[in-house]
Amino acid sequence: MGLFKTKRVVYRPAEDVDLSPSSSEFYLQANVKAPRMTGFFVKIFVWFLESRIVGTLLLYILKGNNLIHKLITNAELEEAPVYAPLHPFEDLKEQEVNCLDPDLSPPEQVQHAVNCLPSSSRKLLNGKKPSFHRWTIMDYSRAYSSGDITPLVVAERFIDSVHESCKPPLQMAFFINYNAEDIIRQAKESTLRYERGEPISVLDGVPVAIKDEIDCYPYPTTGGTKWLHKVRPCTKDACCVNRLRLCGAILVGKTNMHELGAGTSGINPHYGATRNPYDTGKISGGSSSGSAAVVSAGLCPVALGVDGGGSVRMPAALCGVVGLKPTFGRVPHSGVLPLNWTVGMVGILSGTIEDAFIVYAAISGQLPSHQPINILPKSYFPVLSSTSSISNIKLAKYGEWFNDSSDDIRTCCSQALVKLQDHFGWKTVEVTIPEIEVMRLAHYITIGSECTTSLDSHLDEMNFAELGWDARVAVSIYGSFSSMEYIKAQKIRNRQMQFHRKIFAEADVIVSPTTGVTAYPIQDDALKTGELDYINGAALVRYSISGNFLGLPAVTVPVGYDKLGLPIGLQFIGRPWSEPTLIHIAYAMQAICTSDHKKPQVFFDLLKKD
Amino acid sequence: MGLFKTKRVVYRPAEDVDLSPSSSEFYLQANVKAPRMTGFFVKIFVWFLESRIVGTLLLYILKGNNLIHKLITNAELEEAPVYAPLHPFEDLKEQEVNCLDPDLSPPEQVQHAVNCLPSSSRKLLNGKKPSFHRWTIMDYSRAYSSGDITPLVVAERFIDSVHESCKPPLQMAFFINYNAEDIIRQAKESTLRYERGEPISVLDGVPVAIKDEIDCYPYPTTGGTKWLHKVRPCTKDACCVNRLRLCGAILVGKTNMHELGAGTSGINPHYGATRNPYDTGKISGGSSSGSAAVVSAGLCPVALGVDGGGSVRMPAALCGVVGLKPTFGRVPHSGVLPLNWTVGMVGILSGTIEDAFIVYAAISGQLPSHQPINILPKSYFPVLSSTSSISNIKLAKYGEWFNDSSDDIRTCCSQALVKLQDHFGWKTVEVTIPEIEVMRLAHYITIGSECTTSLDSHLDEMNFAELGWDARVAVSIYGSFSSMEYIKAQKIRNRQMQFHRKIFAEADVIVSPTTGVTAYPIQDDALKTGELDYINGAALVRYSISGNFLGLPAVTVPVGYDKLGLPIGLQFIGRPWSEPTLIHIAYAMQAICTSDHKKPQVFFDLLKKD
Repeated sequence: MGLFKTKRVVYRPAEDVDLSPSSSEFYLQANVKAPRMTGFFVKIFVWFLESRIVGTLLLYILKGNNLIHKLITNAELEEAPVYAPLHPFEDLKEQEVNCLDPDLSPPEQVQHAVNCLPSSSRKLLNGKKPSFHRWTIMDYSRAYSSGDITPLVVAERFIDSVHESCKPPLQMAFFINYNAEDIIRQAKESTLRYERGEPISVLDGVPVAIKDEIDCYPYPTTGGTKWLHKVRPCTKDACCVNRLRLCGAILVGKTNMHELGAGTSGINPHYGATRNPYDTGKISGGSSSGSAAVVSAGLCPVALGVDGGGSVRMPAALCGVVGLKPTFGRVPHSGVLPLNWTVGMVGILSGTIEDAFIVYAAISGQLPSHQPINILPKSYFPVLSSTSSISNIKLAKYGEWFNDSSDDIRTCCSQALVKLQDHFGWKTVEVTIPEIEVMRLAHYITIGSECTTSLDSHLDEMNFAELGWDARVAVSIYGSFSSMEYIKAQKIRNRQMQFHRKIFAEADVIVSPTTGVTAYPIQDDALKTGELDYINGAALVRYSISGNFLGLPAVTVPVGYDKLGLPIGLQFIGRPWSEPTLIHIAYAMQAICTSDHKKPQVFFDLLKKD
Repeated sequence: MGLFKTKRVVYRPAEDVDLSPSSSEFYLQANVKAPRMTGFFVKIFVWFLESRIVGTLLLYILKGNNLIHKLITNAELEEAPVYAPLHPFEDLKEQEVNCLDPDLSPPEQVQHAVNCLPSSSRKLLNGKKPSFHRWTIMDYSRAYSSGDITPLVVAERFIDSVHESCKPPLQMAFFINYNAEDIIRQAKESTLRYERGEPISVLDGVPVAIKDEIDCYPYPTTGGTKWLHKVRPCTKDACCVNRLRLCGAILVGKTNMHELGAGTSGINPHYGATRNPYDTGKISGGSSSGSAAVVSAGLCPVALGVDGGGSVRMPAALCGVVGLKPTFGRVPHSGVLPLNWTVGMVGILSGTIEDAFIVYAAISGQLPSHQPINILPKSYFPVLSSTSSISNIKLAKYGEWFNDSSDDIRTCCSQALVKLQDHFGWKTVEVTIPEIEVMRLAHYITIGSECTTSLDSHLDEMNFAELGWDARVAVSIYGSFSSMEYIKAQKIRNRQMQFHRKIFAEADVIVSPTTGVTAYPIQDDALKTGELDYINGAALVRYSISGNFLGLPAVTVPVGYDKLGLPIGLQFIGRPWSEPTLIHIAYAMQAICTSDHKKPQVFFDLLKKD
């Protein structure tokens, strides 16, 4: 202190930063300096990391190598910290938007959403029938209502399919918990309702899976661990789950996830690696791995996930389904594991954007006063969009960032974007989004600090051997940040909120690939010890961070496949509270791409005619 | 980790905590374990603290001894963190409140305030004339308007008086900077306005001093240091100072303060110890030491301070004047040194509550959009009270806390409270306010972390020898907190906000002494090295923290003297945005006590008739 001078990055005031395409701000690629490790090497690394003195040194070196010291710890930032991605609720003047009365019940909200849907979702732009499609909520509802099939039969098929998926040769590791008895009970009740001609909503009898980070009674909430449910018992449904239950949905169990949500591969050492339905040798992505995979494999039309750093959108993209992460605060967060407070949000995984929309209508709503974060806007309500009309849209694109992905992704996403523009006459605006890599680091410090605080009281009640190796690494790094680093990360949040406000003054959405890589192989030695692969991890989260750190709504739509036939997603990031616009755009994108959808390797047809 | 179990304090959920007088929550006295040190020992201590390894160990021991580990670091808290003391603006249904149009200019706001004042402030309840009083804003205004005296003469007397106060035997160290030329220039302009019969407002020509933590052009803003103004030049008035200038006030210079606001004694090694006008051998209290002392000594009817942890109210109480700290966000914060973001607020020091009220009307108002914290309520405006009518009020009192002060303070404050009840028929409600000492520690972690973050970029540009010894200790401790400790402190904030909301459902204000001790002696050896006296420090701040950490408005009123003739203050803490009620109550208290006011040892009469 005082003796040697630190070389400091001095950030110029956010309002002075040029966001035009000709900006001198350069694109900094993720500079991840950490070895890919599996097996024995992971154990050695953890052993060093957890030792008091060497560990401290190792963490210091890791943080230095990964530019945290340079870009954050020692940075000079004049912005004040912004601690939560709150946006005053704005009733955006969006075209053809139906507003919901916030006092409506979830089934009434769902009915409103259904009324907004186009009459036939199967009719495509080019008049072709899709080569492959997953059954939608409306398909289930119609099949039940017409008596073609009953919820009970679907439930039995579901249970058989999950059973089959667990065993060799599949071993998909979709679920952490499912209870056949509980599923059958719900299905019988639903079947009776249809027999009486009194289904509660179009969700009645529809199987919905829940990420094991969200309370769903009577299941324990493990968070992908072997111990968290023991110290934090689940006593009732999370608010969002309760809303689905009120709509008659059959809650079919708790999906697998990356342990503590602290990774992106979906390889869980305790419950197995969730395999990708398009190629069982590949990862599903994470952390909402099971929720993406079950939707992809046809077991449920929709599932809930939690997105703290792309955790809904990344696995959705890798498994070829839709992933919707609403604006921070739009979906009540109570009953979700409090692993962090300012970046994690409940999200929806589904086969189609219409289904995401229906479930979005069911679970979003007014916040109860006991919300974990008490500074949310006081009054707001879900805004539903009439997706039948698509009007003039401006898409912001940051070329260098957009192109920082694998060749297949770059090509496929660019082509999808061109089709979108051509078909609808929409315009693309070139922009520069500065400091994206800085934001990734700031988000990491934030989620890490919040997670450590949350888990701290449990950590010494447990045996560390009960944590997977990669979770142990995460916990070590998560606990290493100072209060100053945390506050500086919040200053970065302020800067980025300013940058994004400016960009959204010029464009309706930001468009990017959803991930930088497609599903990569699950290596045998990773199955037991997990793996440390921060390079692939950084490529996966490359496009996710603003959705979480800035609380922006975002959606991923499947737009094609790489050379190996693995799915590719395109992401749209919207203004706060602009879900209707996002859904408009995602619907348009889907309409263009659906005809080329491919069937996954592993697929279960629950509505098939015998 | 995992090998040994930490003994954890598990806090029960805030909503389950009993706040009734018969609560089982016990009162924990501040358990400060740090030696009082001056001179050579301070230097040795700092030397150890700043050494890398011994310092880390020493900090660990200090934090352990002072219960930070037990009560915060290792505590189990289920509340979510609340990062800023924001309160949705409520238009409280207060009796006889005049609301201000937020578009009024500061002089118009001042005129509104004046219209609310009782016709004669000098008429006391018992019909007696006060034995001693300081000249008020209205006294200055009337004297100028009647031509009895001119602002120029007052300015000349002011300059002479300050000059006298600087020299032996007084050496009061009131100001860090004052510029005779600038003062005379302003006074001449004001005199001309009166000659033309066009004074801008009642503040025209009134001398007002500004704490050297607030920008007041052309003075540098030192923050009580020898270096901060070099790295952060002052280029224009702070928003609140500009408003006073627009009202015609004469800005007479920058008052002395505890270095970086990081202490409570007001002993500044660079600019001298601000001496108490009631006894020049005693401290003035801090950190707004000079602002309190100049008002007490009659040099200005009002001065501005900044209150980050009682820094306006404590010196006000010790110097026998009024101190008003408005609700967090009520006064624009731009142009105040950004030493912290979530606890510091501009406050007012004045001879009478009426004068605090006038200046409050001048400086409060709508926030500009470039506010450092962007999540403040969108629209609000100052609410002015008609202080002429005093109606039924409920006062909450926590006996054990109230009584945790010196005998003289306890007796004096109790008697004042009894008089208040007897005279106005107000009721006292006994309550329990839990975890007050925990809140003090959580506030310390918060202000320390925010201050470190703010100063970090300057710390290695400077020579550490330019910092006073006690500031060096503060900087070392401030930088030692982890992100988890910071976040847990914010969880404590959530708990306390819940506790206080419940108390304010039962009572209009909380009443307490302002400090636990009166002004204590300035020891010779403290003058050069400063002193480390955390025990007296904790006694001084004992009653201040909720005002800052929870953003509540609070006011201190002088209510008597201890056996040595040193002033004692009584504090009222109000609901968010309840300044009108607070001013009501403070006015009532003042009306009862003014007749017994004593003249300080050091007093300058700027309006005296020759």
